Amino acid sequence: MPDFLRTVPPGDDRERLTCPDCGFVAYENPKIVVGSVVSEGGRILLCRRAIEPRRGFWTLPAGYMEMAETVEEGARREAWEEARARIALDGVLAVYSIARIGQVQVIFRAGFESPGFEAGPESLEVRLFGWDEIPWEEVAFPSVHWALRHWREREGRPLAAPATNPPDDPRGSRPPPRQAGL
Amino acid sequence: MPDFLRTVPPGDDRERLTCPDCGFVAYENPKIVVGSVVSEGGRILLCRRAIEPRRGFWTLPAGYMEMAETVEEGARREAWEEARARIALDGVLAVYSIARIGQVQVIFRAGFESPGFEAGPESLEVRLFGWDEIPWEEVAFPSVHWALRHWREREGRPLAAPATNPPDDPRGSRPPPRQAGL
Ligand SMILES: [Zn+2]
Ligand SMILES: [Zn+2]
Repeated sequence: MPDFLRTVPPGDDRERLTCPDCGFVAYENPKIVVGSVVSEGGRILLCRRAIEPRRGFWTLPAGYMEMAETVEEGARREAWEEARARIALDGVLAVYSIARIGQVQVIFRAGFESPGFEAGPESLEVRLFGWDEIPWEEVAFPSVHWALRHWREREGRPLAAPATNPPDDPRGSRPPPRQAGL
Repeated sequence: MPDFLRTVPPGDDRERLTCPDCGFVAYENPKIVVGSVVSEGGRILLCRRAIEPRRGFWTLPAGYMEMAETVEEGARREAWEEARARIALDGVLAVYSIARIGQVQVIFRAGFESPGFEAGPESLEVRLFGWDEIPWEEVAFPSVHWALRHWREREGRPLAAPATNPPDDPRGSRPPPRQAGL
């Protein structure tokens, strides 16, 4: 693959990555992550990552949305792929922006549609954690902390307007938490 | 630009568009539209489109999110670009999926941060409409109908969990409304 150049394509108003050989314009768009806080009886489903980044750390079942699916379908697909869980969505819990890497996360609140879960190919381990059992030092990403906290704030109550980035990190600019000793 | 081929790249599990000349993989990701229902005293700001698709039809100030911005920054930018309006966001009103074209729309409820608006370069005209004045037959897209209806349902009350696609169009598969005689 040749080196792409930053040029302003005809009719555009910003520089875009363009292939000097074939003229292909690689529009970089923010990517959408869809995921869920899945709980049962106050315990929350977390997946220990089998892949980088943050291999070995705990995260929500979440991943990049694909073409031709809805956010709801994507969130359910990811719960199946990562945790072999069939989930029922309650509604949108949070919409986060990680501007640093061009990412928007749409996080649902969910329960189990049918019982059972196990590690999918991208997870080392999948477990339900009571609130006081969550391994906070081994949580993979700041936004997982945010979503867990926002879930806890609305636990047992109807959803409100979705949470957005917390005031201390409005653009999602903070790096991941320091690596805990795993 | 050469014809891209559909092949499964190494390490992937789906077909992606790949350039046979240079090997570039054009990952197609859903795109994020950010926009707002901006109101003042019960009247709603609509923009008459100066560009295709649906030139001449009325829409919300909304457009594609750019890299390195948050959804909130994007919604405010679009209100400025299309309606020269400085807006204050209240929260997320709706999250819609248009699976047919790989699009997610994050729609805010908003008011004016400072007075004044006028047509930006992509608008022919910008106006405030009372609910009974909205030119429903000349609304550009189904999702604009949805957002206006959802706005109306929560008018004067705190936001709830964001609306998602209406039950009659859960995947956003319907084509735009029939072109009215303009
Ligand atoms: Zn090329
Ligand atoms: Zn090429």
